[in-house]
Amino acid sequence: MKKTMKIFENVIKDFTCYRKNTNWHIQDPANQRLTWNKPPKSVLVIKKIRDANLLQPFKDLCVYLTEEKNMIVYVEKKVLEDPEIMNDDIFGPVKKKFCTFREDYDDISDQIDFIICLGGDGTLLYASSLFQQGSVPPVMAFHLGSLGFLTPFNFDNFQTQVTQVIEGNAALVLRSRLKVKVVKEHREKKLAIKNHIEENGILEKELCKQTKYQVLNEVVVDRGPSSYLSNVDVFLDGHLITTVQGDGVIVSTPTGSTAYAAAAGASMIHPNVPAIMITPICPHSLSFRPIVVPAGVEVKIMLSPDARNTAWVSFDGRKRQEICHGDSISITTSCYPVPSICFRDPINDWFDSLAECLHWNVRKKQNDFSVDDGEF
Amino acid sequence: MKKTMKIFENVIKDFTCYRKNTNWHIQDPANQRLTWNKPPKSVLVIKKIRDANLLQPFKDLCVYLTEEKNMIVYVEKKVLEDPEIMNDDIFGPVKKKFCTFREDYDDISDQIDFIICLGGDGTLLYASSLFQQGSVPPVMAFHLGSLGFLTPFNFDNFQTQVTQVIEGNAALVLRSRLKVKVVKEHREKKLAIKNHIEENGILEKELCKQTKYQVLNEVVVDRGPSSYLSNVDVFLDGHLITTVQGDGVIVSTPTGSTAYAAAAGASMIHPNVPAIMITPICPHSLSFRPIVVPAGVEVKIMLSPDARNTAWVSFDGRKRQEICHGDSISITTSCYPVPSICFRDPINDWFDSLAECLHWNVRKKQNDFSVDDGEF
Amino acid sequence: MKKTMKIFENVIKDFTCYRKNTNWHIQDPANQRLTWNKPPKSVLVIKKIRDANLLQPFKDLCVYLTEEKNMIVYVEKKVLEDPEIMNDDIFGPVKKKFCTFREDYDDISDQIDFIICLGGDGTLLYASSLFQQGSVPPVMAFHLGSLGFLTPFNFDNFQTQVTQVIEGNAALVLRSRLKVKVVKEHREKKLAIKNHIEENGILEKELCKQTKYQVLNEVVVDRGPSSYLSNVDVFLDGHLITTVQGDGVIVSTPTGSTAYAAAAGASMIHPNVPAIMITPICPHSLSFRPIVVPAGVEVKIMLSPDARNTAWVSFDGRKRQEICHGDSISITTSCYPVPSICFRDPINDWFDSLAECLHWNVRKKQNDFSVDDGEF
Amino acid sequence: MKKTMKIFENVIKDFTCYRKNTNWHIQDPANQRLTWNKPPKSVLVIKKIRDANLLQPFKDLCVYLTEEKNMIVYVEKKVLEDPEIMNDDIFGPVKKKFCTFREDYDDISDQIDFIICLGGDGTLLYASSLFQQGSVPPVMAFHLGSLGFLTPFNFDNFQTQVTQVIEGNAALVLRSRLKVKVVKEHREKKLAIKNHIEENGILEKELCKQTKYQVLNEVVVDRGPSSYLSNVDVFLDGHLITTVQGDGVIVSTPTGSTAYAAAAGASMIHPNVPAIMITPICPHSLSFRPIVVPAGVEVKIMLSPDARNTAWVSFDGRKRQEICHGDSISITTSCYPVPSICFRDPINDWFDSLAECLHWNVRKKQNDFSVDDGEF
Repeated sequence: MKKTMKIFENVIKDFTCYRKNTNWHIQDPANQRLTWNKPPKSVLVIKKIRDANLLQPFKDLCVYLTEEKNMIVYVEKKVLEDPEIMNDDIFGPVKKKFCTFREDYDDISDQIDFIICLGGDGTLLYASSLFQQGSVPPVMAFHLGSLGFLTPFNFDNFQTQVTQVIEGNAALVLRSRLKVKVVKEHREKKLAIKNHIEENGILEKELCKQTKYQVLNEVVVDRGPSSYLSNVDVFLDGHLITTVQGDGVIVSTPTGSTAYAAAAGASMIHPNVPAIMITPICPHSLSFRPIVVPAGVEVKIMLSPDARNTAWVSFDGRKRQEICHGDSISITTSCYPVPSICFRDPINDWFDSLAECLHWNVRKKQNDFSVDDGEF
Repeated sequence: MKKTMKIFENVIKDFTCYRKNTNWHIQDPANQRLTWNKPPKSVLVIKKIRDANLLQPFKDLCVYLTEEKNMIVYVEKKVLEDPEIMNDDIFGPVKKKFCTFREDYDDISDQIDFIICLGGDGTLLYASSLFQQGSVPPVMAFHLGSLGFLTPFNFDNFQTQVTQVIEGNAALVLRSRLKVKVVKEHREKKLAIKNHIEENGILEKELCKQTKYQVLNEVVVDRGPSSYLSNVDVFLDGHLITTVQGDGVIVSTPTGSTAYAAAAGASMIHPNVPAIMITPICPHSLSFRPIVVPAGVEVKIMLSPDARNTAWVSFDGRKRQEICHGDSISITTSCYPVPSICFRDPINDWFDSLAECLHWNVRKKQNDFSVDDGEF
Repeated sequence: MKKTMKIFENVIKDFTCYRKNTNWHIQDPANQRLTWNKPPKSVLVIKKIRDANLLQPFKDLCVYLTEEKNMIVYVEKKVLEDPEIMNDDIFGPVKKKFCTFREDYDDISDQIDFIICLGGDGTLLYASSLFQQGSVPPVMAFHLGSLGFLTPFNFDNFQTQVTQVIEGNAALVLRSRLKVKVVKEHREKKLAIKNHIEENGILEKELCKQTKYQVLNEVVVDRGPSSYLSNVDVFLDGHLITTVQGDGVIVSTPTGSTAYAAAAGASMIHPNVPAIMITPICPHSLSFRPIVVPAGVEVKIMLSPDARNTAWVSFDGRKRQEICHGDSISITTSCYPVPSICFRDPINDWFDSLAECLHWNVRKKQNDFSVDDGEF
Repeated sequence: MKKTMKIFENVIKDFTCYRKNTNWHIQDPANQRLTWNKPPKSVLVIKKIRDANLLQPFKDLCVYLTEEKNMIVYVEKKVLEDPEIMNDDIFGPVKKKFCTFREDYDDISDQIDFIICLGGDGTLLYASSLFQQGSVPPVMAFHLGSLGFLTPFNFDNFQTQVTQVIEGNAALVLRSRLKVKVVKEHREKKLAIKNHIEENGILEKELCKQTKYQVLNEVVVDRGPSSYLSNVDVFLDGHLITTVQGDGVIVSTPTGSTAYAAAAGASMIHPNVPAIMITPICPHSLSFRPIVVPAGVEVKIMLSPDARNTAWVSFDGRKRQEICHGDSISITTSCYPVPSICFRDPINDWFDSLAECLHWNVRKKQNDFSVDDGEF
């Protein structure tokens, strides 16, 4: 627990500096409520594209934010390229006031005070992916159909709900993310300049390519298009702890424990637990149960030296890529969680989602199984 | 299902002698439909007692069977002792025509052509328990609330449904039972006459007590009131196959696979599969997965020689008793199944029950788990 | 196991026509023992290729069969192309007596009396794949390292063991296979001749392509290289019973229940149980437990009408192919099982494999979990 | 996470005051190593009784501590009542120097600097039970047979190992405990004085009896000797979150997640994760997966208002008692963890135990499941 405490000391420290650049903080940790340093002005609106049901809510929301709340609305360019939006003359004047940006081109990460998502859980994963380098602004996520794990708000009377959040009247759950570093050997280049290295003593690391990711749900390592998984070694803080034989392995946050990890048989972890979950996918071994380790440990995954196939890795279901001998995936708790605004509070929201999304322990209340109290 | 039908032809052959005493058979194994040799005359009506909701349906059914169908209705004495029935003057004349019996006193097993159950799955377990020594008449089971695994019929328009069955228009599922023999050493007596035995060579088996049971769902061996289970050895056809350490072990029919065994983690087996299921209850070993063995093998359970506590056994949740060193429980497939009348047919009835009783794979049809097709 | 024997009598009746072309039968179903009609003359030897440890055993076995037993040895051509075999002068004269064949070119299925496998479980799957159209000769399978589910014999004193089998002194387990029919629409062709059809009334079925397979372990339908599974509908005897959302679904024999299905969480089924197992792979629904249905039902799998991605199917891990809208996979119990020769008998061999291959309920016998009997 | 941070702030604060009364602290949280404030003088030696194998190690250890290390050894009276110890004349002089005490009579909780356990995991549970009211001294636990989850040290060269710990060279894991409060209504008394209350307005709480426990593994609520569990309601921070139908429910620490909870299907949680696990025992609902909630929440368990049977509760397998309508069990994280000395470090010790005690993912490294890379 001491280590975890250390982690939390760090997390708290991280939040300190991190909060310097933010427009919000958590005033009283006891109730985990959002407090704005000054009223939020710029709001990023994320909309699932190609979903006709979202068009009108999207327009209504943007009109409300722009005209009623005088906020600056940021929208991704491709969202506005939808013909239904482009050709809507009434929406035109509102649209003109938007700030637009393109994913992977424009960095808006330090210009946003507040995020609103419209759509499924995917919109929140997408929001998370836009803030890779640093802190994430508070996110308020609406579902249009049924409640999601990450989208607790329903859109009816959105005005009241948005107003309450803007006024700072909101519970928060800080959803931890995983910081992932993928190190790939430059195999071709390496071969080509092998002699050169030997002659000149260039450091090997210069021949590697590093990529970094922040994930909200999980890192999945699987067999990809192959019928056979390579054996994959899992290290914890540098020690080899086990080898995975099976379809793959999931390293997830508590938030991710109710996603793919649940499908693979994991217990469900509340997002407030500082932990990392390791779940095998269809392991050959009957005894390979999922495990939960403290937030802050470093999980490293590599192909086993004797592996005969490669593996594939993806991050929140995106950026799928092949992993070969010598490559490594290092995963630990990020110090940039996603501050996710609650509809009620972290406990009730979670249990509502468990019931709604996973039908957790929902059943008719009857004695199906046996003679009722010996009275048949 | 043709092949399975062949299997059941065999089973049916087993019932040849048994059918000599019965008033029904399965004419065409390919469709497993009930055929009466002559119209059924005597009907046993089983009603869950102390359930006020069942009173009116019970009376309506009995009036219908007696007056419209001219059948002889058998009812257990204690059912009629309900004040609501005793004091109902209008029901009086019908009641007078009943044949009554007392459980454990009167043997009516060869007088019944047909059974109707009113209530939960427990009524069918109870019906099964009344026919311990031989064949069981076809059973038609009504649920009054929601569908059960063993009670497929709903009571609305019961007249039409009962008429159809009496006229022989009904699909059947032959639910296999387990034949159980419990052998207990007469420990006290044995001690007392130990010298006597040694002197006189009395056979040890004379000092044992055998009891036999027919069970429809399962035999459960557990730790009873103790906090600790004795280790229990499981034998198959005489070979020790494993030792159970945990809360206990369930030996169940396919019918029982959707009852307690499902709660303990077993896969669900259709009642037409000729098999016996062995399921550990909270086993200490992570790799102790449930197994399914062929119908007809003999499963024997005994305390392990080094066990420090006793175990307890029950049969379809009844007749709970202690098992000590030297006692044994022998279990195999009974040749007296319960012919259970289907509402539609064996396949559809089963899947309807899985959905209704266990919410099997019932969920909202949405992509909760991840980015929808990369489009968030 | 008497009752099961009765079931198998039936199965054996199914094999009557099939046995007309075979050189063996099961004389007494009660003990399921192999009896040769006349001494087996032709033996197919299957060897895992590219495994140096198998070379000497392979040579020893072939010499023994050819020279001591005067049998005609069939070997696949590519086995002999191994340089270690080609360049072995001492082995030359033996090799000359071999009958060779090439997979997919030469049909030897009616020339073989007996099969011997050397290697892992894969050799038996391969043997099964060579006999797609009809009956399979009895198979005797040796493991060289540790016991497999399908390879019960160890190679030490192989001479005695082979002799016993040739003399007819052997227990058998008839491992059921699945007969699979994949129907694919000729989409391109269909498009091209769409007008033509409409004009000429060509029957649509002419535009379909059927392929058939016999599988010993399982049919797997999964998401292939995609990150997302299409929804897949599962039908039983023509009725839609459920829709799979998740990584995929496994339809397996009892033999396959200890393979991939076990990894996906299924209970293990003894090969003598006449059943088909349906196991979801990482289903989104927490309540989607594996189910076991009677041998002989027809399982059909298709993409759901609203599926947005295709699926992929493979057969015993081979012949991987894409499944698109309109395609269907129909699966039922084959009447051509694999007669697999036991080392001891069907029960003991199976439990030995469970322990050895899956460490089933193997653990140190101690009270790890709690205060030992209150005595700490 | 904020709440958890709050918890950890509290935990840290708790340790501050708590450490005031102790003779040790953790100097550098980063490495979680034990530091003594002054050399430990008094050592409590706990020995599993009635285990002959432990006698000699116990004597050797006591002689070493007393004579070599000049420590004051505390031993429970009943340990010395073993005839093998009472009648050992050589051991007599050492024994005379012992301080003895009786469980439940003598409170030694503030006199002990250090605990050494000899035996199974039960000895540590017992040690924990002796320190119910406050802080627990560091515990060093030896297994004599095979490694346990709570007994990482083997007894060979115990001298070196004890010396190292006494000198402060040791890693620690702070195993969280659960603080449990059982509130029982005084039913009889209440009835008797019902009128009196109504007349005099005595507060109802005066009629309740509270008992408190500190548990290291788990609180188990089950059906006890009954065949049927009462429905049990589970509350979190005052909100009803679910109702348990089944054999019972386990509320466990991370330490307990590898004990009974693992048998009931839970994922395994490292003891450094600040969490509470809730695991159903054989739940009727297929979707009732175990959940993990943040340390510091309050879990309350009561009979459901419509429950027809009572339930039973036990604490680390001890103090079993009945729970009736109106009674409640309140459980939260204790601020008095058990400081458990590591053999190596918290991560390696845990994975060693998983492998040794639960055979976690231990299997022969082979491709049992399928054709090896298409090469059979």
